[in-house]
Amino acid sequence: MNFSQPAAPHLLIDKERCMLNIERMSGKALACSVSFRPHFKTHQSIEVGNWFREYGVKKITVSSLQMAYYFAAQGWQDILVGIAYNPGEQKLYEQLAQNCSLSLTIASAQAAEILASGCTTPLDVMIKLDTGYNRSGIIWDDEKELLKAIKSLKSNKRLNIKGLMTHEGTTYTLDSKHDIINNYRQSVERLRAARQLTGIDDLILSSGDTPSASLVNDFMGIDEIRPGNFVFYDLMQYSIGSCEFSNIALAMICPVIDVRPARGNIVIHGGAVHFSKDSIQKDTGPVYGLMAEYKGNSWEKSTEEIYITSLSQEHGIIHCPGSKLLNNAKCGQQLAVIPVHACLTADCMGGYYIAGRGKADHMKKSCQH
Amino acid sequence: MNFSQPAAPHLLIDKERCMLNIERMSGKALACSVSFRPHFKTHQSIEVGNWFREYGVKKITVSSLQMAYYFAAQGWQDILVGIAYNPGEQKLYEQLAQNCSLSLTIASAQAAEILASGCTTPLDVMIKLDTGYNRSGIIWDDEKELLKAIKSLKSNKRLNIKGLMTHEGTTYTLDSKHDIINNYRQSVERLRAARQLTGIDDLILSSGDTPSASLVNDFMGIDEIRPGNFVFYDLMQYSIGSCEFSNIALAMICPVIDVRPARGNIVIHGGAVHFSKDSIQKDTGPVYGLMAEYKGNSWEKSTEEIYITSLSQEHGIIHCPGSKLLNNAKCGQQLAVIPVHACLTADCMGGYYIAGRGKADHMKKSCQH
Repeated sequence: MNFSQPAAPHLLIDKERCMLNIERMSGKALACSVSFRPHFKTHQSIEVGNWFREYGVKKITVSSLQMAYYFAAQGWQDILVGIAYNPGEQKLYEQLAQNCSLSLTIASAQAAEILASGCTTPLDVMIKLDTGYNRSGIIWDDEKELLKAIKSLKSNKRLNIKGLMTHEGTTYTLDSKHDIINNYRQSVERLRAARQLTGIDDLILSSGDTPSASLVNDFMGIDEIRPGNFVFYDLMQYSIGSCEFSNIALAMICPVIDVRPARGNIVIHGGAVHFSKDSIQKDTGPVYGLMAEYKGNSWEKSTEEIYITSLSQEHGIIHCPGSKLLNNAKCGQQLAVIPVHACLTADCMGGYYIAGRGKADHMKKSCQH
Repeated sequence: MNFSQPAAPHLLIDKERCMLNIERMSGKALACSVSFRPHFKTHQSIEVGNWFREYGVKKITVSSLQMAYYFAAQGWQDILVGIAYNPGEQKLYEQLAQNCSLSLTIASAQAAEILASGCTTPLDVMIKLDTGYNRSGIIWDDEKELLKAIKSLKSNKRLNIKGLMTHEGTTYTLDSKHDIINNYRQSVERLRAARQLTGIDDLILSSGDTPSASLVNDFMGIDEIRPGNFVFYDLMQYSIGSCEFSNIALAMICPVIDVRPARGNIVIHGGAVHFSKDSIQKDTGPVYGLMAEYKGNSWEKSTEEIYITSLSQEHGIIHCPGSKLLNNAKCGQQLAVIPVHACLTADCMGGYYIAGRGKADHMKKSCQH
C-alpha cells in the first residue's frame, strides 16, 4: 500500500515556516541571554528535533520518561522530564541517567521524600512550582512544603537541586497580549519570591508556556524558557494572539467524502482520531479546526472564515451554508485544516508528511508494538 | 527499556469480560437470524479480532481503507469499509478487492457517479442512508438522489449493489432504553421505506450502533448488525444504559504524580494523549473518566463516584475532596480509570495490555513509520 502521495487524511508540515519559528524563538532566547530548552512534547519527532540542532539547541524538555528515552537514543544529552516524577519508574530514570544528563521534576514534598529515600544514581532535580495555574506543583508561597521538599532532597547527596520551574498554563485561557504578558510577569515574580524562600541563590528559574514565550520580548529575571507549541503553532495560539496565521506550520489534509448543500454541510474523512477532540469555543458553539486554502505543498489563509463544527470518530462536519467552499466542494477533493491543538493532533496522527520531502516520525506510545 | 509491567500509563483489557461481550452479541445475532458484522474500528487489533473468530465471526466492518488492509493481511476475507468512498483511493480499493470480498460505502449520488465512471474491478456496494443522524449519507426519503445513485451504480456492471446501511449515531445522545429502542425502530422503518423506493427487494438492510444493538432483543426487519464499541464498552455506554458496569472490559491504569489535599485534587499522569478529550457532561461540568477499584489484573466498581474532572496533554486532575480515594492517595500509586470513549482511548494509546497475558496490537495510522 503506497501512501507516499496519500489521498487519506494526513498531517503536513511546512518546513520553511517551522524553521522560521525555531529561528525566531532561539534567536530571542539568545538575545535575552536566557537558556532555551524547547519542549519536544509538541512534535515528538526525531526529524523535527534535528532541525533544532541547526540553531545550536542542545537542551530539551520532554513530557514522559519514554520520550526521554526516545530522544536520548538520538544523542540528545541534556534532557528535562517535565512531567512530575513517578516513583514506579525509579529504575528507568536511573538507567537513563547513566547515558545522559537527566533532570527530574519534583512536584511535592511527598515525591521529594520518596525520591530521596530510594535514589542510588546522581540526578539533577527541578522543583515544580504552581504559580497560579492550579494544576500541579508546590504552591509558590507554601514555604513549609517547599522547605520540606528541599530538606528531603538534600538528605540524599546524589540529588542536585538545580532550579525552580513553572508551567503557567493559565496563559492558554487568556486572549489578549496584555493579559498574557501580565500573567507572565506575575509568574516570574512568584518564582523569584519562592527562590528567596529557599535561601539558595543559585537556583535557576525556568518558565514554560508558548503564549508568553511568543509575546514577551525580554525574559528579565528568569534563566530558562521551555516553550513547545511554537514550533508549529495552531488555531488556539492564533486565536489568543500568540502568532500570525503565516507562522502556523502544520495542517491536516482531509478528503471530502460527502457534500450536503441543502444542509450547508461538507463531510470530510477527518475525525476525532485525526484531530483530537480539543476545541475552541465560538459564538456558534465549539469548533475543531479552521479551513485554509490548500496549495499542494502548503496552505494560505482563506478569505472565508470556516470551521469544522462537529467531529465523530472518523468524520468531520464543516457547516458553511452559502460559502464558496461549499459551492465548489466535490467528493474526493482535498481540504487543508488548521488544527485547534497541534500537540494533540500530532499525537493522534503519529507521523507527518513534510511538504515535498517525504515522511517524518512521531514517537509511538510504549505499549505499542 | 522494559515496560512489560509498566508503571507508566497503559490500557488494560479484561479478556474474560471482552469474550463475554463478543459471545453475548454474536449469540443474539444468531438467535435473531441476522448477520453479525462487528465494527473493528473500536479495537483495531489483530489479537482482539482473532477472539471474534472463536464465535464464528467471518464478516467485519472497518472505518478506513487502511484498516481494511490491516485486517485483510490477517486473512479476514469479507470486509465492509464503513466510511464513505473517497475517490482519491480508487486504485487502493480495487487492489484490495483482488484479495478479499470488499464492500464500499457510497454516501451520495455524486460519489456513486464518480465510482461508476472509474471502477474497473468487481466491487460490492452498500448505500449509506441518513435515517435521522444528520451526518452523512443519502436522506432516507430523498427518492430522487437515491434513484440517481442507483442508476449510476447500475451503469457499471462491475458494481453490485448489495444493500442499504445506516449508522444511527443519534442513539449515543439518548439516555433511556426506551428512547434508544424507539429510535432504532424508526431507523429500521426508514431503511425499509427506502428499500421500497429503490424497487430492489433483495437489498440487505444493515444497522450499526452499539446502544441499539445492546438493548434491542429482536432485530426484526433487518438483515445485518454492525456494532463495534460493545467489545469493550465504556463510560458513555454505561451512562446511557447500554451496558452494566461489569461488562466494561477496558480501563486505563495511571500513576498518581501529585496529591493536593487542600485543593481536593489528585493529579495523575494520564491526559488527553492517553484518554482523548472526549467527555460526558455532569452537573459539575465535563468529566473524562470514572475511577474504579484497581485489582491488579482487573478492576471493580468503586463505592465512591469519582471522575477525572480536567485534562491537559499529559495530566489528569481528579477533584474528589473528602473522599477515601484522596485520603489514601500516594505519589506513585496506580489508579484504574474507565475511559469515556473506548474507541478514542484505544486509538490514542495505540496498544493494549491483556491482564496477566502480555501485549496486544492496535493499528498505527498510515503516515506512521
